[in-house]
Amino acid sequence: MNICTYSYEEYLHLVKSFHGSMAPGLIIGGFIVDLALKNLPEGDFFDAICETPVCLPDAVQILTPCTIGNGWLTVVNIGRFAVTMYEKFGGEGVRVFLDTNKLEDWPEVRDWYLKRKKKQEQNSELLLSQIREAGHGLLGMQSVRVDPDRIRRKKMGPVGICPDCGEAYPIRDGKQCRDCGGETPYKEVIPLNRVDH
Amino acid sequence: MNICTYSYEEYLHLVKSFHGSMAPGLIIGGFIVDLALKNLPEGDFFDAICETPVCLPDAVQILTPCTIGNGWLTVVNIGRFAVTMYEKFGGEGVRVFLDTNKLEDWPEVRDWYLKRKKKQEQNSELLLSQIREAGHGLLGMQSVRVDPDRIRRKKMGPVGICPDCGEAYPIRDGKQCRDCGGETPYKEVIPLNRVDH
Repeated sequence: MNICTYSYEEYLHLVKSFHGSMAPGLIIGGFIVDLALKNLPEGDFFDAICETPVCLPDAVQILTPCTIGNGWLTVVNIGRFAVTMYEKFGGEGVRVFLDTNKLEDWPEVRDWYLKRKKKQEQNSELLLSQIREAGHGLLGMQSVRVDPDRIRRKKMGPVGICPDCGEAYPIRDGKQCRDCGGETPYKEVIPLNRVDH
Repeated sequence: MNICTYSYEEYLHLVKSFHGSMAPGLIIGGFIVDLALKNLPEGDFFDAICETPVCLPDAVQILTPCTIGNGWLTVVNIGRFAVTMYEKFGGEGVRVFLDTNKLEDWPEVRDWYLKRKKKQEQNSELLLSQIREAGHGLLGMQSVRVDPDRIRRKKMGPVGICPDCGEAYPIRDGKQCRDCGGETPYKEVIPLNRVDH
């Protein structure tokens, strides 16, 4: 059982290196992306949707050209464990999801996924071995159509200088940047001198 | 001039491989993350904020343990070209941004960043060489404090089965999942039989 062009072990290695831990969701995510890529509709260029920010975006970023920073991966957080790959112009796509109907054969996966066991009660060795054995067997698949213009990141448009902070920002955000407009994530800001090492 | 533990050339190689192209913003992003990591406040564990989804999240994901999927990187889209690394419990952090006051010495960077030239009028060789020569010289730095509980991804909480689609979803989203509740990104959904290759 390979995951895209990687052996299972190679993929685990990439997961550990990129994500920092052998997250079960990211291993299932590897099978999800693999199954999606094997069932793409017609087309040359495909963008991705993750329906949750949890784990899955990293499977897409490891296994496809789509990343958050290049805008080809969009997280539409509707809380389901699913990835869609869609043709970037027309929007025809394939959606792969974890099928709850298929969980009964894999009780350790079921109890982990549906949070029926606390972390300390889980048998992580059994969980990982059931995930590996099940592979695509946990998954369902749908043909979908998305509206790429609605889903993809909007172009930034013209850039201005915020009169308050002096930084560049997209003029479409208004007369000042959104930070100075009240959406700041910071409780306190103090200028610093640069320390180069 | 290194970028974190990589030589400049090694970093360019990683950018090309992960992001798909040698995006100028992602090269500046490398210097931003490098400067932030060299000026961290006290602490052992640091999470990241990107103030834009454009390019910068990939610099963070390439150069730090923080990714979208593991939740240690949060995109707070307030439209500025800045990265903050903050101590994950207390919220003390360092914010590094592209300082518009420093752009005059680097006219090709200025015209690209402020969108004063169309793409076909840009001299991309000159742009990349000015970025490389400028390095940290384009950047400003601030000490900031964030509220980690407000910024970090919330825990998912208990999981239920959506009565409409039959998929698992976070119960906090309501009596059905957000897709079935009307937030679907799909215009059409058709079940598919699995095709394994």
